[in-house]
Amino acid sequence: MPILDRFSKTFRLSNELSKEMLAEFYGTFILVSFAVAASAQYVFTDLSSYLTVNFANGMGLVLAIYAAGGVSGASLNPAASIALCLHGFIPWYKYPFYTIAEIAGAFAASAVQYGINYDMLNAYDGGNRTTYGPTATAAVFSTFPNPEVSNLNCFFDQVFGTFVLVICIFAILDKRNSMPIDKGLIPLSMGGIVFAIGTCWAGNCGYAINPARDLGPRLFTAVAGWGLEPFSFRNYGWFWIPIVGPMVGATIGYFVYQLCIEIHWAPEPESTDVVVSANGTKEKPVELTGVDNIAFISSKEAGLDVATKL
Amino acid sequence: MPILDRFSKTFRLSNELSKEMLAEFYGTFILVSFAVAASAQYVFTDLSSYLTVNFANGMGLVLAIYAAGGVSGASLNPAASIALCLHGFIPWYKYPFYTIAEIAGAFAASAVQYGINYDMLNAYDGGNRTTYGPTATAAVFSTFPNPEVSNLNCFFDQVFGTFVLVICIFAILDKRNSMPIDKGLIPLSMGGIVFAIGTCWAGNCGYAINPARDLGPRLFTAVAGWGLEPFSFRNYGWFWIPIVGPMVGATIGYFVYQLCIEIHWAPEPESTDVVVSANGTKEKPVELTGVDNIAFISSKEAGLDVATKL
Amino acid sequence: MPILDRFSKTFRLSNELSKEMLAEFYGTFILVSFAVAASAQYVFTDLSSYLTVNFANGMGLVLAIYAAGGVSGASLNPAASIALCLHGFIPWYKYPFYTIAEIAGAFAASAVQYGINYDMLNAYDGGNRTTYGPTATAAVFSTFPNPEVSNLNCFFDQVFGTFVLVICIFAILDKRNSMPIDKGLIPLSMGGIVFAIGTCWAGNCGYAINPARDLGPRLFTAVAGWGLEPFSFRNYGWFWIPIVGPMVGATIGYFVYQLCIEIHWAPEPESTDVVVSANGTKEKPVELTGVDNIAFISSKEAGLDVATKL
Amino acid sequence: MPILDRFSKTFRLSNELSKEMLAEFYGTFILVSFAVAASAQYVFTDLSSYLTVNFANGMGLVLAIYAAGGVSGASLNPAASIALCLHGFIPWYKYPFYTIAEIAGAFAASAVQYGINYDMLNAYDGGNRTTYGPTATAAVFSTFPNPEVSNLNCFFDQVFGTFVLVICIFAILDKRNSMPIDKGLIPLSMGGIVFAIGTCWAGNCGYAINPARDLGPRLFTAVAGWGLEPFSFRNYGWFWIPIVGPMVGATIGYFVYQLCIEIHWAPEPESTDVVVSANGTKEKPVELTGVDNIAFISSKEAGLDVATKL
Repeated sequence: MPILDRFSKTFRLSNELSKEMLAEFYGTFILVSFAVAASAQYVFTDLSSYLTVNFANGMGLVLAIYAAGGVSGASLNPAASIALCLHGFIPWYKYPFYTIAEIAGAFAASAVQYGINYDMLNAYDGGNRTTYGPTATAAVFSTFPNPEVSNLNCFFDQVFGTFVLVICIFAILDKRNSMPIDKGLIPLSMGGIVFAIGTCWAGNCGYAINPARDLGPRLFTAVAGWGLEPFSFRNYGWFWIPIVGPMVGATIGYFVYQLCIEIHWAPEPESTDVVVSANGTKEKPVELTGVDNIAFISSKEAGLDVATKL
Repeated sequence: MPILDRFSKTFRLSNELSKEMLAEFYGTFILVSFAVAASAQYVFTDLSSYLTVNFANGMGLVLAIYAAGGVSGASLNPAASIALCLHGFIPWYKYPFYTIAEIAGAFAASAVQYGINYDMLNAYDGGNRTTYGPTATAAVFSTFPNPEVSNLNCFFDQVFGTFVLVICIFAILDKRNSMPIDKGLIPLSMGGIVFAIGTCWAGNCGYAINPARDLGPRLFTAVAGWGLEPFSFRNYGWFWIPIVGPMVGATIGYFVYQLCIEIHWAPEPESTDVVVSANGTKEKPVELTGVDNIAFISSKEAGLDVATKL
Repeated sequence: MPILDRFSKTFRLSNELSKEMLAEFYGTFILVSFAVAASAQYVFTDLSSYLTVNFANGMGLVLAIYAAGGVSGASLNPAASIALCLHGFIPWYKYPFYTIAEIAGAFAASAVQYGINYDMLNAYDGGNRTTYGPTATAAVFSTFPNPEVSNLNCFFDQVFGTFVLVICIFAILDKRNSMPIDKGLIPLSMGGIVFAIGTCWAGNCGYAINPARDLGPRLFTAVAGWGLEPFSFRNYGWFWIPIVGPMVGATIGYFVYQLCIEIHWAPEPESTDVVVSANGTKEKPVELTGVDNIAFISSKEAGLDVATKL
Repeated sequence: MPILDRFSKTFRLSNELSKEMLAEFYGTFILVSFAVAASAQYVFTDLSSYLTVNFANGMGLVLAIYAAGGVSGASLNPAASIALCLHGFIPWYKYPFYTIAEIAGAFAASAVQYGINYDMLNAYDGGNRTTYGPTATAAVFSTFPNPEVSNLNCFFDQVFGTFVLVICIFAILDKRNSMPIDKGLIPLSMGGIVFAIGTCWAGNCGYAINPARDLGPRLFTAVAGWGLEPFSFRNYGWFWIPIVGPMVGATIGYFVYQLCIEIHWAPEPESTDVVVSANGTKEKPVELTGVDNIAFISSKEAGLDVATKL
């Protein structure tokens, strides 16, 4: 189509990192659109049970990975990105760029969902945007703790939840350990992990397990009428927990997986396999596992590797 | 079987477009049978939660695509058809024919479901078919808005919902971006999109996101005893929203996908791949992506292409 | 293991039909164990919603097909068997044998579930087995109609439900029409059909859509303490509906699928494909579709064909 | 990464059985983390229905098999291990080691979930850990019977539930009988079995169907403040039922599958197939079925076999 050709000439990004940032923005936009809208439907209507919310969060991740996986590998989560950087899938210098794109995508999704749910939101809170009280609506966007649960307990909850997320991600990506799952089903299995975590660890403080998914919407509420309360909640003691907890949990998860499974594999023989890639050329596969191999993967190759595997 | 041979000689359609229209009619009949029956079970019995309705809508699409996908590509949705036409999967001249077949299939499904649910319908409304009030039953067939939500908000809801549908459809069909999903699982993933949208964006006005799914049943109610009310609702301000909104959303979704993902792919090298097709012949694959290629796909080839992919 | 060797010598069936009857018995035993137990959990406990029952019915079919599919093709349903006989997948002379095995399997499953749920059953009805009244329990085993719905409406419900079942089964098995679904996923997709029907057409009279699943448990209740009431219900006007309705629906479904999709395929060229079978030999595939081919499939080959496909 | 290299040198296990025990510990830790946390969310919050618990139990098994399947085959269940030993998949001498690792993993998971749910637990029972009464919490960890149901009925429930589990496991693993399911989807289908059992046989006494999943948490409660009550319940008549029942059921299930399906397969010809394994070498496949072959599989080969198939 001529119009697309012109678009293509005008807007095509030649820089690899720019494309990846756009994909992380785009994927996180999809992920958080589902997450926030599911909470809105749960709070504002009688059409959802919490199980519905869990399905929405799982499917949101599935669709976000399909959307962005081919370009950036669809980390979509600054905590998961740490584990992927530790393993060499994402080079460290890209980490802040990915994180900024993810938070921006989450912020943008919150703004759009604010618009889509505008009338229901007003009907629910009478136009009075609050973080506390019976018509509090800040929790539609970002997570808040169960009043019965202390910040310390919540911190361990976020550490553990993200720990589970990361050990399961690596179990599925580790070609030597897991059953070799079909590449096209990896997004579905990733969504299954998030769904399952929601059925088990939502009671303490929601299950952010993703700093971008939590901070982006919290920033949006701060500028869109809820004021400082989403941050000052519990005397500024809460907001950092779904940011730092997941990062600690992802790091622990990565090393536990290495210690329990990865390092015990027999040393890999010099591989001479060839695989036929999607575009018909023969290429040596970049092995996902095998810690000794990582050093030889340039950052670009690692990026491509994630792109086709996560 | 002799009887089938005779049927075959008598009724076999030789015209490609007639077959495709029959398939679109047939597929939309299945889709809307599930959609309307799920609403009926939700309204008339205590056997369904709204999550049940979401599953029914998703599975209805899955089964409808299995039923019609091999013949026409199973668009089943005049809004999605716009995006497929924009991309060259369906030639524009077929658009009105597909749309008519889809609306007719939705109308027929409504009529059959009216029969299947006849006794429960009468027990519920006492034979008094209405669009308003405590025993209103028009909403079993077509969508109506949440009373708290304005037409404008609903319009954006329909735009956004179909936008999400279309960007997710293209993410899954784009062989370069997505994980290469197994062809036999594409119907399932398409159903997953609709299911997920139902868990998130049903609160404003149901989630028609399909003009045929909404207009066909609305026409049926207009002739089957509900009178003009399904159209005159909100002073003729409502009925066009689930028709026009999805069309706008599908168009936006198509261009957003192009701008965010499609145009940034590196220009495709002249492909020399061959694949072994289902009937054992070798053929050059018709690439789904690569905007430059689209011009070279004749409408017939594009049709076949969709047939095996959507 | 020596004991298995001895078993093997003593009990191995050499007759093909005996093996198939055993498999149909075994598979229907599994199917109906899930169906009856799910109803029991729904009626006797607060652990189930009706959505849970739908999942159980779907998964019960999935597991039953995995269990019996390799031997007999896992029809498990005398109504579906009619369509499979019409298409030549099962030779007609086997029909009564399959049906007897299926009803016997359903009867046996009911007896075992009676035992497994014995204490909960007694706690619920105080040992008074009835078909009517507030502690009626006959409906745990076989289906009964919604009091608001007439026998005539129920008959059409059973016709339509089984019609949907059969057109969806054939859509998935038709290699030319559907996306070619992976053989190992066919049981899952078949379960998905039953699950989806349960989300839509359970309100009139449950969704037996299977004469064996309904008659077997009904016979069990008649001999296990409920007396004639499960049959005399509505003056002997009810019990035959979930038997005859599905048979009519399956027949209609078969011909509708043929008329709408099957007969319009272009005549198949003489196929020269070879596929590598599971045991490493090369063989010409037996085409599922192509009505002209059916005549050339001997009953034994057709049996094997179903075995690997349904 | 240098730190992983050092870890690798220090902690790498060279002994096969040690690796497998670690994997069974690790996998059961994941399985029971989901199982206990799902119960906690069900009891302490209003975010779960029992269907949510069923999903969590199913997905917990899926993820546990992905985590441990490649190393030990992921039995994760001393009852299922009996059937796998009977079939020669696991050599008998490993049985006690696997069982100890599984119970230890379940115990550890209980301890961690005690910590993660600490504040909600205290809010619920006021710090008073009890097995009886309105704020009893022992059932969050291990199973307890429905008060209406006798120990005898519960015993048969556990026998039957595990019987179903085992016949379905073997149906899916039997390459000659089942549709050949993709290896990467086997964990999902195994989780589906557990999910389905939960929708049908949870009413009598939960659905432990796994001695380790029940005994590990019960031991934890005994040492963590609940005292002897979890064991002395019903005068020491209960606690052994979810241990012995599953073992009996698994044994019966194994032999029933053999008698109904396995022994009737035609004797397998001497196989000369080769398959290309994941690391590119050609190897003769170890056939899962064919009882005569089992004698020729050394324990190490059997271990590997399970590793890639269960």
